[in-house]
Amino acid sequence: MARTKGSVGADTKTAIYSAAKKLIEAKGFEAMTLRQLAAEVGVQPGSVYRYVESKDELLQALMNQHMVSLIENWEKLEGKGDDPVSRLKAFVAFHIRYHIERRADVVIANLELRSLGEDYRADVVTKRSQYEANLRNILSDGVKAGVFPKVDLEVAAFAIIAMLTGVCFWYRPDGRLSIDEIIEVHQKLVLQGVVG
Amino acid sequence: MARTKGSVGADTKTAIYSAAKKLIEAKGFEAMTLRQLAAEVGVQPGSVYRYVESKDELLQALMNQHMVSLIENWEKLEGKGDDPVSRLKAFVAFHIRYHIERRADVVIANLELRSLGEDYRADVVTKRSQYEANLRNILSDGVKAGVFPKVDLEVAAFAIIAMLTGVCFWYRPDGRLSIDEIIEVHQKLVLQGVVG
Repeated sequence: MARTKGSVGADTKTAIYSAAKKLIEAKGFEAMTLRQLAAEVGVQPGSVYRYVESKDELLQALMNQHMVSLIENWEKLEGKGDDPVSRLKAFVAFHIRYHIERRADVVIANLELRSLGEDYRADVVTKRSQYEANLRNILSDGVKAGVFPKVDLEVAAFAIIAMLTGVCFWYRPDGRLSIDEIIEVHQKLVLQGVVG
Repeated sequence: MARTKGSVGADTKTAIYSAAKKLIEAKGFEAMTLRQLAAEVGVQPGSVYRYVESKDELLQALMNQHMVSLIENWEKLEGKGDDPVSRLKAFVAFHIRYHIERRADVVIANLELRSLGEDYRADVVTKRSQYEANLRNILSDGVKAGVFPKVDLEVAAFAIIAMLTGVCFWYRPDGRLSIDEIIEVHQKLVLQGVVG
């Protein structure tokens, strides 16, 4: 790492991470080689090793970066004092908007968990649970306040997050509905279900 | 294909398909080689080609088999004369139960669509849409009957299916809740949302 300091090193590392996301999204982590990655970035294969210890370390860094940033961004936005309904609507809007703009991260975080080593996987799962706890807390506060009927918090949180993340797999920027319209349909579904 | 007739050929083909699902679920389609597949089944690498034209053809066959069987099984079960609420509850129960028992198929159908060629992908997407149409029809009938308020049928169907399929990614047979309990939570969420 001695030769990579300052902004040039940081830029190369960013370029490597970004190219890796593109390659993994397109073909999968197992299919990507560090040689391809070097070619994509336009550096010599050997140079990649200055920035990335191994493929496994790279995957772990990408997932970790995604989860940490997701948690931080929600915590910045969350209105803890608001009523549970407003907080739930805000969570739905945040989760959809954040993930739609980061499709590669979602594909990697959801599809490549199987390729992570035991220890790394445990760490990502812990961070994921930490993020999900925000939703469980909103639901739990709503139940305590008598606004929401009793529900299995863990299953409900899994179900809602799966529903919201699912948008990334069919959304197209040139599609029939705007992101705001998609968010509105999901807020209604989460809050009132199909019966309304 | 001339040398593979009768039940021995059929058994070997079934064994190859089943081993392929296992390998793809564990490591991804791009990482699987036909050589590994042969070793897993216990046949010579050359023999695999009697049953499988290419890796692409194999993936297409696995996805196609899954989608055709899914559609057929729902159509056998569907009570077309029932009211929309009962049909929706039945759909939720069917979808969760069917997919929980076929985790490898779900992983492949959801994670490996990117590895399918254009034509094959179009075919799988058409079949998927055909299955989703069953849910859109239930929702649409409910809206027409005034039981469900107006909703974007396409987005609602995507959202509900994503929520239900999501169960496969966290369900453990030795977990806290039974499949019936998990189904019940999802039926409530789909019908009444969090507010109830």
